[in-house]
Amino acid sequence: MDKGHVLIFDTTLRDGEQVPGCKLNTPQKIEIAQRLEELGVDVIEAGFPISSPGDFKSVVEISKAVTEPIVCGLSRGVKKDIEVAAEALRFARRPRIHTGIGTSDHHIKYKFKSTREGILEWAVDAVGHAKRFVEDVEFYAEDAGRTDNEYLAQVCEAVIKAGATVLNIPDTTGYCLPDEYGAKIKYLVDHVKGIENVIISAHCHNDLGLATANAISAVMNGARQIECTINGIGERAGNTSLEEVAMIMKQHPRLQVTNRINTKLLNPISKLVSDRMGMQVQPNKAIVGSNAFAHSSGIHQDGVIKHRETYEIIDPLDVGVDESTIILTARSGRAALAFRLHKIGFPVTKLELDEIYEAFLTQADVKKEISDEDLREIMAQVPQKQEA
Amino acid sequence: MDKGHVLIFDTTLRDGEQVPGCKLNTPQKIEIAQRLEELGVDVIEAGFPISSPGDFKSVVEISKAVTEPIVCGLSRGVKKDIEVAAEALRFARRPRIHTGIGTSDHHIKYKFKSTREGILEWAVDAVGHAKRFVEDVEFYAEDAGRTDNEYLAQVCEAVIKAGATVLNIPDTTGYCLPDEYGAKIKYLVDHVKGIENVIISAHCHNDLGLATANAISAVMNGARQIECTINGIGERAGNTSLEEVAMIMKQHPRLQVTNRINTKLLNPISKLVSDRMGMQVQPNKAIVGSNAFAHSSGIHQDGVIKHRETYEIIDPLDVGVDESTIILTARSGRAALAFRLHKIGFPVTKLELDEIYEAFLTQADVKKEISDEDLREIMAQVPQKQEA
Repeated sequence: MDKGHVLIFDTTLRDGEQVPGCKLNTPQKIEIAQRLEELGVDVIEAGFPISSPGDFKSVVEISKAVTEPIVCGLSRGVKKDIEVAAEALRFARRPRIHTGIGTSDHHIKYKFKSTREGILEWAVDAVGHAKRFVEDVEFYAEDAGRTDNEYLAQVCEAVIKAGATVLNIPDTTGYCLPDEYGAKIKYLVDHVKGIENVIISAHCHNDLGLATANAISAVMNGARQIECTINGIGERAGNTSLEEVAMIMKQHPRLQVTNRINTKLLNPISKLVSDRMGMQVQPNKAIVGSNAFAHSSGIHQDGVIKHRETYEIIDPLDVGVDESTIILTARSGRAALAFRLHKIGFPVTKLELDEIYEAFLTQADVKKEISDEDLREIMAQVPQKQEA
Repeated sequence: MDKGHVLIFDTTLRDGEQVPGCKLNTPQKIEIAQRLEELGVDVIEAGFPISSPGDFKSVVEISKAVTEPIVCGLSRGVKKDIEVAAEALRFARRPRIHTGIGTSDHHIKYKFKSTREGILEWAVDAVGHAKRFVEDVEFYAEDAGRTDNEYLAQVCEAVIKAGATVLNIPDTTGYCLPDEYGAKIKYLVDHVKGIENVIISAHCHNDLGLATANAISAVMNGARQIECTINGIGERAGNTSLEEVAMIMKQHPRLQVTNRINTKLLNPISKLVSDRMGMQVQPNKAIVGSNAFAHSSGIHQDGVIKHRETYEIIDPLDVGVDESTIILTARSGRAALAFRLHKIGFPVTKLELDEIYEAFLTQADVKKEISDEDLREIMAQVPQKQEA
């Protein structure tokens, strides 16, 4: 594999669906999985088979419904979970079992009431058990973000020996700063024997608003898989947004990494997931929010009209949006007003514009947005100098 | 001033209000400004006085309505704008004029049709003119994110000589990666004469989902003011979120910086701004989203019940949220079910729980969430072994 290729591991149907109110039925999950395949994701985490009969069934059906992507099933690091995941994945052309255990002292002490030695043994057993069923086994070191690096490296080295093909280093609580998370990945690259033969995966949560930055920092330090979701949905404040990391890699060639995402499909799939899950995307969400390409301030509108790249780094067409929207408000300047008037059939001179602009501002201070219909009314009221 | 103190410059009422559909009237702006003062922000950017009569009036009234924070008015780097801003700020106890000009080659060439020399002169004139009216003048180098560092340093040095007290280095298009934006701040710290006497300000946009990470990277490299908005609202994909940077500084003592934000007021002011602007906050928004402290997966619920810090780094009370919400879905485990049953008056034994859990899962696969009412129905249907 190209060293610069970053695998996109989509967990919309697992970590994303784990959200209050976002539960999908099996046909809806199949529909989204097929769209994820079109989008070009490399891995689809289809569910957590042991968690409920519905989840089990969805993993079975998604395995049948897609061809190209790896289909992954989550399990805790216990035999029964792993066996049920393997069973659910039996129709997958490229199955992967994702298993693991918490490695931070918090998790070891409070959740497992175990010791570092006990957890290490548990991790090796889990990976070994999963290898009996599939070749491709991803190990997660839950709460790796708060796990001591030296111990984490020991665990990683042991599970690689046991056959893990991917090492997931989750910042489960969304605690890390980008420099710290990147340094953790680099520590593993530098200290774990055999790490060059496996893929390091970044799984970040957004509790402090840093999930995207952390994933990119991981890639800059050697990670070659990003776990993410459409619209950044997921437990609590959500996961890394697929659309954000895809566009960052595209916009920043100096990262020297590629991915297989067809960015033109980002907006349609964002809408599909939002609709099926009933999970609204806020207007100011990066890339896929309804305002992501909307300009309302006069200064910005003027700049965009003169040259799109003055204020926009992304061509809206590249992410499946028709065009930048110029919205007229009290903050709009003369240039934007003239541009819109021209578009709806009122070419005006500079002198006329001054007068119309005053009328426009008075209206705009009262109404939130000025529509084309409002403009036509304004034009009907100003003296018709065009004929003079 | 304490070297480790980071000023919080809130621009909800200027950059935030510059959003399609978010226009507020003057009483609403006053209400928000007073709540921002309670929250502990250091600077309130109250508006862009020349842009409309409504904006002018709001800056006047906000100047009268708050006492402690600096009140700032935006202006382009032209005399008329600056004079109108000064006029609007005449009642402010601590007025600041924020003026500047685009410094990237994109802006110089396409927006101003000027040269680097011309823009430098323009910048110095603008700051000099603003100094005739107020002592505190913040200079913005628009599109600094894409401005050549050497030229940017020249501009900064010149405006410091002209009297600028704050240097705003905006990543106007939201283009920078955190390492790059941090390096830009460090370059200025290392190369601009007199920079130790002024405050460097980070103004970041979220087009690639990196506004918060970029602001923190700037602070790590010497910036001592962050420009941000409640809920991260703002032009296109918005600005740095005030709530995110405040909590990052609080959660990460190694940054060795402090701020004056009373974090317990973050949730109430988030709701106020969202309500007044009619701008929904998505459920998975960090810190202030409705799901930010909600757990639905069985693994997480179990962990949180055993020890809150297993999955949560922030105490919800610290940001004004009553308690973590445990929501029952098909992903919930036995521990969460038992916890909720106990809370609503059904203490159950381990054996009973197995049977109830099966009934619960069947229901949960059909419904999205299981309410307390649903639980009571389930309990009414399972055999009453409690009496055996």
